[in-house]
This record gives sequence, C-alpha cells and structure tokens, in this order.
Amino acid sequence: ARTGDPEVVFGAGKTPAQTVTLLRRLHELHPQRAVLATRCGTDTTTLAARELSGAAIDEVGGTIAVGPLPTPRGRVAVVVAGTSDLPVARECVTTVEVYGAMADLIVDVGVAGLHRLLARRERIEQADAVVVIAGMDGALPSVVGGLVRVPVVAVPTSVGYGAAFGGVAALLTMLNACAPGVSVVNIDNGYGGAVVAARIARQTAPLTAR
Amino acid sequence: ARTGDPEVVFGAGKTPAQTVTLLRRLHELHPQRAVLATRCGTDTTTLAARELSGAAIDEVGGTIAVGPLPTPRGRVAVVVAGTSDLPVARECVTTVEVYGAMADLIVDVGVAGLHRLLARRERIEQADAVVVIAGMDGALPSVVGGLVRVPVVAVPTSVGYGAAFGGVAALLTMLNACAPGVSVVNIDNGYGGAVVAARIARQTAPLTAR
Amino acid sequence: ARTGDPEVVFGAGKTPAQTVTLLRRLHELHPQRAVLATRCGTDTTTLAARELSGAAIDEVGGTIAVGPLPTPRGRVAVVVAGTSDLPVARECVTTVEVYGAMADLIVDVGVAGLHRLLARRERIEQADAVVVIAGMDGALPSVVGGLVRVPVVAVPTSVGYGAAFGGVAALLTMLNACAPGVSVVNIDNGYGGAVVAARIARQTAPLTAR
Amino acid sequence: ARTGDPEVVFGAGKTPAQTVTLLRRLHELHPQRAVLATRCGTDTTTLAARELSGAAIDEVGGTIAVGPLPTPRGRVAVVVAGTSDLPVARECVTTVEVYGAMADLIVDVGVAGLHRLLARRERIEQADAVVVIAGMDGALPSVVGGLVRVPVVAVPTSVGYGAAFGGVAALLTMLNACAPGVSVVNIDNGYGGAVVAARIARQTAPLTAR
Amino acid sequence: ARTGDPEVVFGAGKTPAQTVTLLRRLHELHPQRAVLATRCGTDTTTLAARELSGAAIDEVGGTIAVGPLPTPRGRVAVVVAGTSDLPVARECVTTVEVYGAMADLIVDVGVAGLHRLLARRERIEQADAVVVIAGMDGALPSVVGGLVRVPVVAVPTSVGYGAAFGGVAALLTMLNACAPGVSVVNIDNGYGGAVVAARIARQTAPLTAR
Amino acid sequence: ARTGDPEVVFGAGKTPAQTVTLLRRLHELHPQRAVLATRCGTDTTTLAARELSGAAIDEVGGTIAVGPLPTPRGRVAVVVAGTSDLPVARECVTTVEVYGAMADLIVDVGVAGLHRLLARRERIEQADAVVVIAGMDGALPSVVGGLVRVPVVAVPTSVGYGAAFGGVAALLTMLNACAPGVSVVNIDNGYGGAVVAARIARQTAPLTAR
Amino acid sequence: ARTGDPEVVFGAGKTPAQTVTLLRRLHELHPQRAVLATRCGTDTTTLAARELSGAAIDEVGGTIAVGPLPTPRGRVAVVVAGTSDLPVARECVTTVEVYGAMADLIVDVGVAGLHRLLARRERIEQADAVVVIAGMDGALPSVVGGLVRVPVVAVPTSVGYGAAFGGVAALLTMLNACAPGVSVVNIDNGYGGAVVAARIARQTAPLTAR
Amino acid sequence: ARTGDPEVVFGAGKTPAQTVTLLRRLHELHPQRAVLATRCGTDTTTLAARELSGAAIDEVGGTIAVGPLPTPRGRVAVVVAGTSDLPVARECVTTVEVYGAMADLIVDVGVAGLHRLLARRERIEQADAVVVIAGMDGALPSVVGGLVRVPVVAVPTSVGYGAAFGGVAALLTMLNACAPGVSVVNIDNGYGGAVVAARIARQTAPLTAR
Ligand SMILES: Nc1ncnc2c1ncn2[C@@H]1O[C@H](COP(=O)(O)O)[C@@H](O)[C@H]1O
Ligand SMILES: Nc1ncnc2c1ncn2[C@@H]1O[C@H](COP(=O)(O)O)[C@@H](O)[C@H]1O
Ligand SMILES: Nc1ncnc2c1ncn2[C@@H]1O[C@H](COP(=O)(O)O)[C@@H](O)[C@H]1O
Ligand SMILES: Nc1ncnc2c1ncn2[C@@H]1O[C@H](COP(=O)(O)O)[C@@H](O)[C@H]1O
Ligand SMILES: [Mg+2]
Ligand SMILES: [Mg+2]
Ligand SMILES: [Mg+2]
Ligand SMILES: [Mg+2]
Ligand SMILES: [Mg+2]
Ligand SMILES: [Mg+2]
Ligand SMILES: [Mg+2]
Ligand SMILES: [Mg+2]
Repeated sequence: ARTGDPEVVFGAGKTPAQTVTLLRRLHELHPQRAVLATRCGTDTTTLAARELSGAAIDEVGGTIAVGPLPTPRGRVAVVVAGTSDLPVARECVTTVEVYGAMADLIVDVGVAGLHRLLARRERIEQADAVVVIAGMDGALPSVVGGLVRVPVVAVPTSVGYGAAFGGVAALLTMLNACAPGVSVVNIDNGYGGAVVAARIARQTAPLTAR
Repeated sequence: ARTGDPEVVFGAGKTPAQTVTLLRRLHELHPQRAVLATRCGTDTTTLAARELSGAAIDEVGGTIAVGPLPTPRGRVAVVVAGTSDLPVARECVTTVEVYGAMADLIVDVGVAGLHRLLARRERIEQADAVVVIAGMDGALPSVVGGLVRVPVVAVPTSVGYGAAFGGVAALLTMLNACAPGVSVVNIDNGYGGAVVAARIARQTAPLTAR
Repeated sequence: ARTGDPEVVFGAGKTPAQTVTLLRRLHELHPQRAVLATRCGTDTTTLAARELSGAAIDEVGGTIAVGPLPTPRGRVAVVVAGTSDLPVARECVTTVEVYGAMADLIVDVGVAGLHRLLARRERIEQADAVVVIAGMDGALPSVVGGLVRVPVVAVPTSVGYGAAFGGVAALLTMLNACAPGVSVVNIDNGYGGAVVAARIARQTAPLTAR
Repeated sequence: ARTGDPEVVFGAGKTPAQTVTLLRRLHELHPQRAVLATRCGTDTTTLAARELSGAAIDEVGGTIAVGPLPTPRGRVAVVVAGTSDLPVARECVTTVEVYGAMADLIVDVGVAGLHRLLARRERIEQADAVVVIAGMDGALPSVVGGLVRVPVVAVPTSVGYGAAFGGVAALLTMLNACAPGVSVVNIDNGYGGAVVAARIARQTAPLTAR
Repeated sequence: ARTGDPEVVFGAGKTPAQTVTLLRRLHELHPQRAVLATRCGTDTTTLAARELSGAAIDEVGGTIAVGPLPTPRGRVAVVVAGTSDLPVARECVTTVEVYGAMADLIVDVGVAGLHRLLARRERIEQADAVVVIAGMDGALPSVVGGLVRVPVVAVPTSVGYGAAFGGVAALLTMLNACAPGVSVVNIDNGYGGAVVAARIARQTAPLTAR
Repeated sequence: ARTGDPEVVFGAGKTPAQTVTLLRRLHELHPQRAVLATRCGTDTTTLAARELSGAAIDEVGGTIAVGPLPTPRGRVAVVVAGTSDLPVARECVTTVEVYGAMADLIVDVGVAGLHRLLARRERIEQADAVVVIAGMDGALPSVVGGLVRVPVVAVPTSVGYGAAFGGVAALLTMLNACAPGVSVVNIDNGYGGAVVAARIARQTAPLTAR
Repeated sequence: ARTGDPEVVFGAGKTPAQTVTLLRRLHELHPQRAVLATRCGTDTTTLAARELSGAAIDEVGGTIAVGPLPTPRGRVAVVVAGTSDLPVARECVTTVEVYGAMADLIVDVGVAGLHRLLARRERIEQADAVVVIAGMDGALPSVVGGLVRVPVVAVPTSVGYGAAFGGVAALLTMLNACAPGVSVVNIDNGYGGAVVAARIARQTAPLTAR
Repeated sequence: ARTGDPEVVFGAGKTPAQTVTLLRRLHELHPQRAVLATRCGTDTTTLAARELSGAAIDEVGGTIAVGPLPTPRGRVAVVVAGTSDLPVARECVTTVEVYGAMADLIVDVGVAGLHRLLARRERIEQADAVVVIAGMDGALPSVVGGLVRVPVVAVPTSVGYGAAFGGVAALLTMLNACAPGVSVVNIDNGYGGAVVAARIARQTAPLTAR
C-alpha cells in the first residue's frame, strides 16, 4: 500500500538543539515509523547520541534516524565511484532504508578501474533501482546505464577541484549520459536520489511476478 | 520479464535517406517489435510517409515508429505546462509507447493557472510514473511532486527567451525542486524522460498487488 | 503626500560602533521618523540594545530601527516559502514598516505543499502589493502571480545548495515566471523588495475608492 | 474596480494564421475590451492588417490589438535609453494601454548624455510608475531610480554585442541598481514590464487624493 | 631528426579561392612534403578537387592535403565514441598522417556499450599515443585512460544538445578525468589533438628499444 | 623623459616578513625613488610601521610606500561611487603618486545621487585622466564618460552581494559603457587602473600646450 | 585644444538607407570634419559608394567616413595578432584617423611566432598609445605590455571556436594581463579601443617636450 | 619496459594519520619503488617527518615520497610563470621524478618579461616534454608552444583575483593557445601535468636515436 513518506528534518542551518528537539517531537507523533534528520554536523550527532536513546546515528553520512525502520520492499543498489563520495553515499543508504527499501552499498568502482566495476556487475543487476554516486568527471552513470535495464538515478558530488566547479562538471556529464534510462538529482543530494530510488523499488513487482 | 529495449535512431544530423534506410533495416531485423526514430524534420517524416508503409509518424514530435507496439504494462502520465512544449511532449508519448507502457498526455496545466492542474489531479494520481515537461520557469515539477507519491521525471524545455537561457533556467529549477521524488533529464529530452518513466511503469506491480 | 524616504544604514562591512554611531546621528537629525539599519550581525544588535534605548531590534532579520514608525498606509503581504528564508523575510517586514506600509507575514507556504498556500489565499488577496520570498527552486512567485491581480515583487534567496548556485536558480525562475505581473529584485534583497512594495502600497487608493 | 486582465496571445512560435485566428476568436469572446498579440513578425502583422479590420497594428513593436482600449487610469512613463531599444519600448507602450493605463514614451535619454534625461525630469516625475528600458550597460534605471519616488520597473534589452551577452550585462546592472525602488523583469520583456507598471498605475490614488 | 612541421591552412573564414590559392603556393614552396588545409566546406573541397590535381580530399573531415605524406614514425590510435563525432575524427586522422605518424581509427566505442570498447582493447594498446574523441558526456577518455599507459589526448566535440552546451560538458568531464595521463585540447579540435599525439608518436622509441 | 616604472610588491600570499624584507631590499637598490607594496594586511602594515622607518603606510588601501615620491607630472581624478569602494580607491591614489602623477580623490558620487556628482564636475574636468571606481551596478563610468573628454579607466569592485557576483556585474556594465572613451581593468584592481592613468597623465602635454 | 568628438553612426541594426541618410545629414551639419559610420554591411557600403561622393569606404572594416580628416596629432600603433582579426583592426584604424590621430597598422604578430613581433618592436615603441587586437588566447597584450611604457588598450576579438566562447576567453586573458598598463574594451570593439587610444595620442606631449 | 605506475595517495580530505598510514602500507607493499602522497597540508608533512623515516618531504609542494626513486628516463622541463605558481610547480617536479623522469625546474619566466624566458630557451629545448605552469592570463604556454617542437602540457593555476575566476581565465587561454602542440590539464593539477609529461619523456627515444 502507498503508505505516507517518513518525516525528514533538514539539519543544515539548524542548531543541534533545534534538530534534536524536532526529531524528538516527530518521533513522539510517529512512534511506529522512523523519522530522519540529514546534513547533521558532529555537534548535532553528538547531542543526539546523548539525548535520543536508540537513535541510529551515522557520523560520516550526517544522518540521525529515530524509531523502527519499515520492513523493506525491493532493493536499491548504491554504486559509488570513490571513497571521497562516501558521505553522500551514506546519506543515500540511510534514506533508502528509512523510506522502506533495502540498500546495497558498492564502493570504489570508478571508471578508471573498470575491472572493479565489472566484478560487481551481477550484484548490481539484482537491484530494482540503481543510484550511482560520483564526483570529478561523473562518468560512472554512463557506464552503469549501459549495463543495467532498471532505472538509474545519478547523484553528482562536489568532490574534485578546479574545473570540477563544485560538482557542476559531474552534473553536466550525468545530464548528457549517453546511456538512456539515467535521470539526475542535485549535487550532493544523496537524500533526493534515495527517495526516487526507494519509491521505484517499493512499487516494483517481485522478480517472480515480472 | 526483462525484454530488451527497442532500437532507436537519433534522427538529428542524419539525412532523410539515412534515417529511413536505418529504420527499414532495423525493422527487418526486429519485425516483431516497433523501432523508433526521434528528432526527425519534415523532410524525413515526408520521405518516411512515402517509403515506410505502416509507419506511425508524428510531425509535431518528430518521431517515426515502424512495427507493432508492445502490449503496454503500467501507465505513465505526461504532464505538460504549455502548448509550446508540445513537440517535446509528443516525442515523450511516442517513446513511452514504443518502450512498452501506456501514456496519458495532459497539456496546458502550467502553474500560473493552478485550477487547471488541480482539476486533473486524480487522473495524474493513477499513473505509475509521471513525466513533467515545462519551459520558462520550469516550476511545474515542484508542484506536481507535492501532489503525487510515484517517481516524477522532470524534462526542462528550451521554450522561453532572455534569461530562460535555452532551458537552463527550467533545468536549474527542476534540479532544486523542493518536493522530493523528482529527478531530471537533459533539456528537451522527451525521449530520455520517457525511457526512465516507461521502465518504472513496466516494472511496477499492479495496484492490486501493492 | 510624497514624504521623503527614511534614512537607511547598510550595516554589512561596518563595525558595530560605526553602525550604532550612524544610527544615533541620523535619529537626532530625523527624530520624528524611524531610521533603519539592515544587515547587522549580533555584535551590532547587542551593542545597539545597550546603547540605543527604545530601538526596535530584530536579530533574525538583522535590523535595527530607531524612532517612531510612520502611520502605515496600504498593506503588503510578505509570502515566504520556507522557514530558512526567514532572515530575508524579517528584513523585508521591518523595511515595509519603516517605509510606511503595513506588513502581513505569511510563512511556510512553499509550492510542494500547495494546500497551505491555498488556505491563505484570501488573506493574500487583501494586500495592495505582494512580496514573495523563496529559495531553492524559486517557484512560489509563479504560483502566487497566478492567484492575485496586484503587483508581485519576487525576492530570490540564497537558501539551497549545489545547483541552487547561491540563489541564481531561484533568480532565473522568477525572471521567467509564467504569470505576468511579477518583477524581481536581487538575491536576498528583502530590503529592496520591501521598498518597491511599500511604495506601491502607500500610493494605492483605498479599496473603497477603486 | 479590479476588472480582469485582457487576453494576450504570445505570437512567437505561432504561424500567422494561428495568431490571427486566436485573436479573432478572443475578440468575439471579449468584444468590449481589446485583446492583444505580442511578438508578431511582419508576416503576421500583414495578415492581420488584411483580415482583422480595425486592428491597431505596430510593426516595430510587433503588436496587434483588436477591440476598444479601456479608459485609462493612471500614467506610466516609458523611459528608453536608445533608439535600438524601440521595439521593446513599443511593445511596452501598447501593453500599458491595453492593460488600461496611459503611456508616456520618452526616448533617447541614455546616461551618456545626461542633459537629455534631466531635461525630461519633470515629465517623468508626473508618472505613477516608470518603466525604464535599456540595453548595453543597462545603467539608466540606476539614474532614474535616484530621481523619482514611484516604483521603477527596469527592462533590460538584448541590444549590444560581445560582453553584453544578449542582455545579461544589462540585466545584472539592473538587479544591482544602487537606487532602491527598482525591480526587474526578463530581457526584452516589454510586455512584462508594462503589466507590472499598468497594474501599479491603475491602482494608484489620484495625486489630489494622496 | 626534428624535421619542421608541415604548413597548415585554417580554412574557416576563407573563401574557396583563397584556400586553394594558399595551398597551391605552399605546395610549390614545399613540394617534398604534404601541406594541409582544415575546416574546408564543400565549396572549397569541390574547387580543390577541380583545381589541385592529386590532392587528397576528405569531405567529412573537411581536409585537403597536397603533396606526398612523410614516411610515418610511430602509431596513434584515434578512438571515437559515436558516428556523429566522425568529422572531428577524420580531421584528426588526416592531420596525424600529414604530421608524420600512422593513424588507426577506431569508431563507435562509446562507454554505454562497453563490450565494443573492450573488444578493441589490444589494438588500442599497440599505439604510442591515443587520441580519444567524444561528445555529450565525454566519458570515454576516463575509461580509456584507465586501460592504457601511453599518453591520452582527449578531444571534446560539440555533439549533443541542451546541457551539452556545445561541447562544454564533454570538455569539463575530460579535464576532470579520474584516470591520470589524460590531457585535453579545445572543443572539436581534432587538428590540435593530432599534432600533440603525432609529436609523441614520432619521438617514441620503437617497442623493441623500450 | 620615459623613466622606468617603480618597483611594486604584490603583498597578497606573502608573509609579513617576506613583504617587508622585499621592500627593504628594493629600497636599498632604488633609494632615489619610492618602492611600493599593495594588498598588505594589517599584520604586514604593523610590521612595516615598526621596521621600515619613514614608510608611508595606508591601512585602508593596504599599501606601503618606501622612499621619496617622484615629482608629479599631470593630474589623475579618482572618482569613487561609494565609501565601501574606498580600499580600492586608496590603493589607486597611492599607486598614482608612486607612479609620478598627482591624484585627486573624489568619493561618494554614485549615480543614485546625481547632484553630488554634478557638483564635482568642474574638478573632474581638470584632470588629464580619470579613474572611476564603482561596485554593485558599476554604472558610474558610463555617466562620467559622458561628461569628460579625457580617457576614463573604469575599475569594477567586488562590493555588493547576490547577482553582483563578486564584481562581475560591475565589470560587464563597464565593458558595455555606452559612453566611448572608457576602458576597463580587472575587478578590485585599483593598482592597474592607476598605472594606466598615471602613464597617460605623465605623458600629457600641459593644458597651455594643447 | 579640446575639439569636440566627431559624429559617429552605429550601422548595425539600421537599413542601408537609414545609415546613408544619417551620414549625409551629419555631413551637412559638420562639413569641416569627417563623420563616421561603423559596422556597415556590404549593402550599406555599396549604397554609400553610389550616393555619398567622396566617402572613404572600407569594406573589410565596415566603415564609411565622409568629410575631411582632421590634421593628426600623435601616433597610435594598432598591433594585430592574426589576419582573421583584420575587420576589427580596420575599424580601429579608421576610427583613430577620424578621431584625429595617426594610425600605424602592424598585422600578423601573434605570440606563437615571437620573432615577427620582436622585429617590429622599435616601430611599436614610437607610438604614443598602442591598441593590441587579438582573438583565441588573447595573449598578445600581455607580451606587448611587457615591451612598451605607453598605455596599451587591448581589444579582444571573437575569432576562434569552442572554448574561445565568442571572445570571452580573450577578454579574460586581457583583464588578467600580467603586465601592468593594459586596459580593455568590449569584444570586437575596434571603435572603442580607437577612441581611447586617439584621445591619449592627441593629448600626449611631443617626444621632444617630454 | 612499461613498468606499472607508482601508487599515489590523494592527501586532500584525508586526516594526517590516514595519509601516513596509507603511505606506510603502500611502501611495505612496494618497497622497491617510491610511493607518493600529494596535496598534504603541514599537519600531514609534520607527522610524516616524524613517523616515516627517509621520506622525501616538500612542504611547499605538499608532497611526501617514500622509497627509492626510479632511475630516470628522459627529461621534462617544468617552466613556471611566477613564484606564486611554485606550489603547483613543486608538486609537478616531485611527481615527474616519482614517475621516473628527470625534472628541470625553470621559474619566473612570465611573458611580461620576455627576455628572462628567451634567456632559458636552449635549456627548455633540451627537454623531451615541457610542462608550462601559469596563472592569471595563462599566456605562457602560447609563447613556449611557439618556441619548441616537443609536446607542451599546460597547467593553469588559480593564482590571481577577480576575473581570473580561480584559474578559469588561464584555463581558457591555454585551451585556445594559438600555438599547436599544446594540451591542457585541470586547474592546479601539477600532478596530472607531470604524469602526462613523464610518460612522454620515458617513452621518448634518446636524441641520438631520433
Ligand atoms: N531524442 C533523443 N535524445 C537523446 N538521445 C536519443 C534520442 N533519440 C535517440 N537517442 C539515442 O541515440 C541512440 C542512437 O543513436 P544513433 O546511432 O546516432 O542513431 C539510441 O540508442 C538512443 O539511446
Ligand atoms: N539590506 C540592504 N540591501 C541593499 N541596500 C541597502 C540595504 N540596506 C540599506 N541599503 C542602502 O544602503 C544605503 C545606505 O548605505 P550606507 O550609507 O553605506 O549605510 C541606503 O540608502 C539604502 O539604499
Ligand atoms: N511578449 C511576451 N513576453 C512574455 N510573455 C508573454 C508575452 N506576450 C504574452 N505573454 C504571455 O503568454 C500568455 C499566452 O501564451 P499563449 O497561450 O502561448 O499565446 C499570456 O497569458 C501572457 O501572459
Ligand atoms: N594532486 C592530485 N590531483 C589529482 N589527482 C590526484 C592527485 N594526487 C593523486 N591523485 C589521484 O588520486 C588517486 C588516489 O586517490 P585516493 O585513493 O583517494 O588516495 C591516485 O591514483 C591518483 O590518480
Ligand atoms: Mg566516475
Ligand atoms: Mg511551469
Ligand atoms: Mg518555492
Ligand atoms: Mg543606459
Ligand atoms: Mg562517451
Ligand atoms: Mg555606481
Ligand atoms: Mg594572441
Ligand atoms: Mg603568464
């Protein structure tokens, strides 16, 4: 059934106290389903660790989840070019789970070392939707898009310097991906990529039914 | 089952003869499933009308389809801001059908006349995926994204002038859509939006099964 | 009558002492009408609280007003997409009042949750001019412009990240608003939007006279 | 009373026949109030001259108005930097009149010849709203904004070459106008500037009442 | 030995007569070594075919070479993403040969169909330098750069539309290529890529000597 | 006579010790003519005040001059829009003097308050060259260029926010100045504007000789 | 003495008849001093050749001068990188002469063939002002600025393709010229560069007097 | 022989401990060949100095090399415009050596002082490949490219301010270099320029063999 989306707090630009208070209040309103905060700095995760017992905290991804995760439906592969893209990837994984799908994180498969990507090909093909996260040249979604038939959501990251222009180079690459079936979300928007992919995964018929 | 994608010819930069020849050859190779050409000018559609008997030709959308459409699975709503966006919308509709889903075209529901959009709300909510096509301010996907729970694929168009910058303004609006669940393809890429949405619709479980 | 505009100090790039001294001097020159400082940091508002007795200080909006407000003529609705836009909105409200009009602040009515906006529709329609403040996709003025007949002044904010480009995405959206009757001021320029709207409101004939 | 806005056809991208047919149909629906088409090429104005008897046609401004103009309320000064900006200025003047205000066109008062502008100062000060139209450096609204107290709507034009970037230079100048009370519409958007200014002029109390 | 570079005429912006006359004069001055014209339209190639007996003319690449090619030293692989990139690729191949190296043209190996690229891997690895030519996402050099150890010169092309921005997207991708050993020349500059690669190939020691 | 230019140290990116040491060494090499450092922070000016006896230090302009100024030839008017542009203006004045011309600083004459500018018109007309310094809209050089007949060098500043883009808006305005006789240097480059203007002033014939 | 500037018609966007009529009228008003039209296409120059007896017409530069040139004062060197920059250079030369200085045109001295430039060094050093015209990399003013002590006015041209961005690359190079004493005018603005340089040359004291 | 490339750690975004640990582990795996870390801050170089005995540390270039350098093959000239470009230049020199070629560093030969460059001409001509590093106008590669016949790799740096746009101006200059044989890497990418040049140098036949 189309259950409602979870409540999500955007932690950037809020004080630790504001975020933690918001999470507690939302959790009280929705005790049966995890609520989420993203873009939390260490000040906020530290406060949450102290004050929100049972919270699932990811310092690298900057996320705090409070309350039970929904039973997952469908599977999202989160395919990541390099280790520097990990914060975005972890935000993505947590969001996928809070939105009710299973997440399979596959890291360090950038296109400059093709064998590492090809070695994970089968695992990626088992997903109902794929999120591809890459910075610098942002070339990975073009390659993955040529390997799979399920929708690919590309997330450009701000990793890089100079003519990477804070993720613009990767964003443009992805918008021009020569493989069809690729759509794109905002730079560093692991959350947005996850929402799209989790919705796809949740509504996908099981393989046996297709 | 994961059937293969159809063959598609990119008509831009090809002579009418080249495109028609390619379509004929591909149709002979794949007689059981429609092959498609996009971005065809009137020279090409005119030649196709004469030489490819039974071709389904759309002058406005610039598409030519040869061969039987697959039995559709799932439904894609194609929601369009203004009549100037129609060429992109028609490319999108034809592609959705060639890729094996049902397309429901809903035109002239730009955000400046909200009542027209709200009047189609129920019809849009019946889709398994929504493609939203808009130029100028590109505001429509943000509004539609707040109304539905299925994935929204936004297609910016080059309609507009001055600070529309050939579709860049609409593209940026869509990448920053404040509703989650929206992803974006290239400017005027009705084809790309359709491929993503059709894949989602095809793999979606029927409403009864969800 | 066309009374002169109030004196305004641009606090950015001035030391707290400079701003407070300027305000005191201007207030002595114009004791009968409020003088204003905008873009004041907490150092400056703290100093002002101590040294300028009777000053009206808004920490969130970064404004300091000294002296009596003029009797308001006309009404400006200040319509705000999200709570992150509040600093710009508060600068706007204070400036409207110092420029001699009434301000009605309506917050958290972004286009992704249309029902919240539509619920305030009547209240917005009572204004003589509307300022619409939004960041990220900047879509709100296009929607509001389709609902009202009075001039709409759009203020893009730098709220957002990645392809929001510090407010450029919202600025472009607003310049391309598909509803007519919308004009735009600089990014984060709540002051500028207020001056335009207050001038319109002050010179507008009362509803009974139109 | 707040009567509805006139019907307006956007002629760009329509065939002459489409525009003329639309105008005729709209005029039949609204015989008591002028309907307008903008951005009409000479093909369209020629056809309109032949087929729409009594139409008011402006070849330079690319406009066609059919039906009686409303009785004007309030006055809009349309202040224009150079003769190359005339097409935008004429679109603006016609639109002001169709929207129900009086238009006073003042041409060739660019900032490089300040005496010409200052010689028209009194005439400009009699307006209820001012539209300032300029290309290249777009400096004129900053100067006019320092001379008048009514709202100034700035329209950048694409006049210029090289680093004028098709009107972007003028647009940025105007967004940064150092005089307060200036707001901006899209490049070459004489129509949009007119709608804002006419709405202000129409709702402005007569001078005697202020 | 470091022999001088060949004489090259830049045909763009020259009349057919000017280009043909220049080529004839240069050939008379340097009868022992081919002289080259690039960026020639069909008017120019047609005139050259008539007037310059023995000229090697490539209509697709827009090149005209007059005089004997030097004996080649070293080998350059010219790896091309799609058939639309062929004009740039042919300009590149001819230039490599006129500059004195052997060219091996490998077309239609874009990253969306990885198997086609991997099937040519050995052939590419035999080169002393690789030129990679791609438009749209420009992702190919990142992948090729991860496969070979010789210098890779990347040539972005203007193939694409919308956010391809006339080759800018591909250019940025290539400047950010995550494989080291990749350098870049201007958009559509098949000539420039060839000069760099041919110089490398000519000065490379034979495999037996390394 | 064409005497050599003075030695100038660019203080940005140098430690205080490096700058002071360089100045001392250059002063010993050129004791008869002032040497200059620009873009010095307060750390550097403080150290210089202690260690370089007789140095002429300007904290606001960030300059340090050591040694006797040359006898001035000719006069440069330095015309400045607002007080926020003062750091650039002071760098300019000092550089003019070190390069051997007289500088006349005229501040706070932005185009939004035209009377202040016109009140200084005669003084400006006495100069052999004019440097105009302005941020935000950068409109001042267009106006000044229409008032004087000597060369105008425009210096855009990074003063402003939002669509000022760190001085880009002002730079474009100036490149498109509709008054002829205006040329432009880099953003915030008071030094560069001064070198051009001082060279002009020095080589200009005295008024009596023209 | 400071004689007034000549009258100049901007031919772009005017019909041949309009330009020729304007020139005739201006010549009648100012028979003792040449009047000028720039940016004239061949239609206009052809009409002028027929109708304006005694006009000095330059087809390459697109200029028409009517009436006697003023006696020249001072000398301007017009230094040009390549032959493709010639239209801009010729507009510059004619304007210098109409503005009353002597012009010395030096072509084909781009920085890639340094010996050609160095061979003209003495000739360039005899000028009172130097205009440097270059497209593509725009590197020439940086080099010339290091060779001479008189003011250098740099004119970027739109010659080039791809990342030349219609002259933007050359413009940026020139704004960042590492030699001081260089100022810049708009892309392709040979007229503007000439006005600045001619003014400098006219007011410069003769060498014997310096 | 084509030995494998060395292992390289990208120090940016890693903690000192992470970088030092990675270097130690890689050195243990490859004791016979130097491993390298780039973009290390002083925290990291300080820790490395204490913990990695025998490491070759360059604070200015931000590099740490551990293990024996390979015997160099071929020579790379590293030609640098100004002393502010030194950090990029030193990263380049170290990388050339770790990649197995000889590096010859030539500093402070910017195009504004041509004699200094020409005085090193012979030394530069002895190299098998040239890396040219420059910021601001980025003009140096155009000049060097006109002097030598071996491949030139241009590295733009972020040195400069205002319209230098963090290295974009220099990047564009280099992509448009009017001398052929120049290719470009990312802004500040001394590492990337070195990898390309070292590969060329290593595979180049000795002068005696050419
Ligand atoms: N309108 C379109 N926009 C973008 N890509 C397209 C479009 N139509 C077709 N394509 C892609 O172009 C490929 C065929 O290109 P070609 O071989 O040049 O005909 C197909 O596989 C599609 O992925
Ligand atoms: N927040 C603001 N944004 C833009 N301009 C402002 C703002 N606040 C004040 N100003 C302008 O700054 C002027 C005063 O500047 P100053 O003399 O530097 O304090 C006022 O006349 C206003 O026009
Ligand atoms: N010159 C113009 N610039 C921008 N928008 C315009 C212009 N002229 C008409 N419009 C808008 O276009 C709408 C009609 O578009 P259409 O239905 O395509 O004719 C009108 O309601 C106007 O708001
Ligand atoms: N300064 C640099 N600029 C760009 N890429 C670099 C730089 N230094 C190292 N790299 C690349 O970064 C890779 C290692 O990244 P990491 O695994 O994050 O340490 C190496 O294989 C190099 O290709
Ligand atoms: Mg990648
Ligand atoms: Mg819309
Ligand atoms: Mg909004
Ligand atoms: Mg103007
Ligand atoms: Mg590719
Ligand atoms: Mg100004
Ligand atoms: Mg040059
Ligand atoms: Mg340089």
